[in-house]
Amino acid sequence: MNKERKEICLSGSGGQGLILAGIILAEAAGVYDGFEVAQTQSYGPEARGGASRSEVIISKEKIDYPKVIKSDILLALTQQSCDKYIKNVSEDGILLADSTNVLKIPSFSGKVYQHHITDDAIKVIGNKLVANIISLGIIVQLTDIVTKEAIKKALMNRIPVRVKELNIKALEHGFEVAKKL
Amino acid sequence: MNKERKEICLSGSGGQGLILAGIILAEAAGVYDGFEVAQTQSYGPEARGGASRSEVIISKEKIDYPKVIKSDILLALTQQSCDKYIKNVSEDGILLADSTNVLKIPSFSGKVYQHHITDDAIKVIGNKLVANIISLGIIVQLTDIVTKEAIKKALMNRIPVRVKELNIKALEHGFEVAKKL
Repeated sequence: MNKERKEICLSGSGGQGLILAGIILAEAAGVYDGFEVAQTQSYGPEARGGASRSEVIISKEKIDYPKVIKSDILLALTQQSCDKYIKNVSEDGILLADSTNVLKIPSFSGKVYQHHITDDAIKVIGNKLVANIISLGIIVQLTDIVTKEAIKKALMNRIPVRVKELNIKALEHGFEVAKKL
Repeated sequence: MNKERKEICLSGSGGQGLILAGIILAEAAGVYDGFEVAQTQSYGPEARGGASRSEVIISKEKIDYPKVIKSDILLALTQQSCDKYIKNVSEDGILLADSTNVLKIPSFSGKVYQHHITDDAIKVIGNKLVANIISLGIIVQLTDIVTKEAIKKALMNRIPVRVKELNIKALEHGFEVAKKL
């Protein structure tokens, strides 16, 4: 991706670790890859009722206006979040949909990638909670938005020691999945 | 605080748990107290070199512009972050400085509160890492920015089971400290 400013929206439902995924992606870009980064989550009536999201803006320039207007990349781990946030994706953007939960892809002019991410988290990695990290792996492999070294360092920095191995396995599984998409 | 929109800046150095504190405060306000909330952290050259911050905007109205312009409340856990972010506090704002680390209060027209927060984390609670949670307790007691019920629920929701007791103790210690400030 060669744009000066890239906006990523990570969406799903509460408890899927999307805030953590946003923080990891933001640290990878800002602390390890040297970009300017703003990472935001919103709460309130809009966030209630299922769909939640975490937003990351990665820029070569100082970020004066940190609100995500049009996402370049949307991760959707649930049907509800996909239906809700697809409207905010730019026309030539990317949608990564978890086909375990997103059974119907909304009308969208950009590029669509689908993979049964949650199924893989359960069956390949053995823990449903790492769907967020598999997703990060897929996004990084597909888009080069941050380097693999940076995302690994940021991941290691943000998760407890006892689940490090599990999470690295999930991240690397994401890399491999994306190579076949 | 009766303003329609309140902006809180939680600052210190990396590793002091300020992102987590921001997320807990944001969830308290947005999920449990029913406000519109945006919670942001920035990374990049500006954030490197010690001073780090996490920002929370709490509003009765939809937040169209989530960038913190002037903080109403600044928490400063280090001298460096205090010196750096005091410039962004509104003239009638509040500074809460951790006097364990902030030895010199910069010139400021607003209200200043000082307490040896990190000392208390170590000596009263027994863990340096809860300075962030003591700080939240002090801020909530001083400003009523969210309800005590909401901050407790959000805290319980965001920390591992094994450190719940420690964190509740830290939060309640913050309430008590603030009553004497």
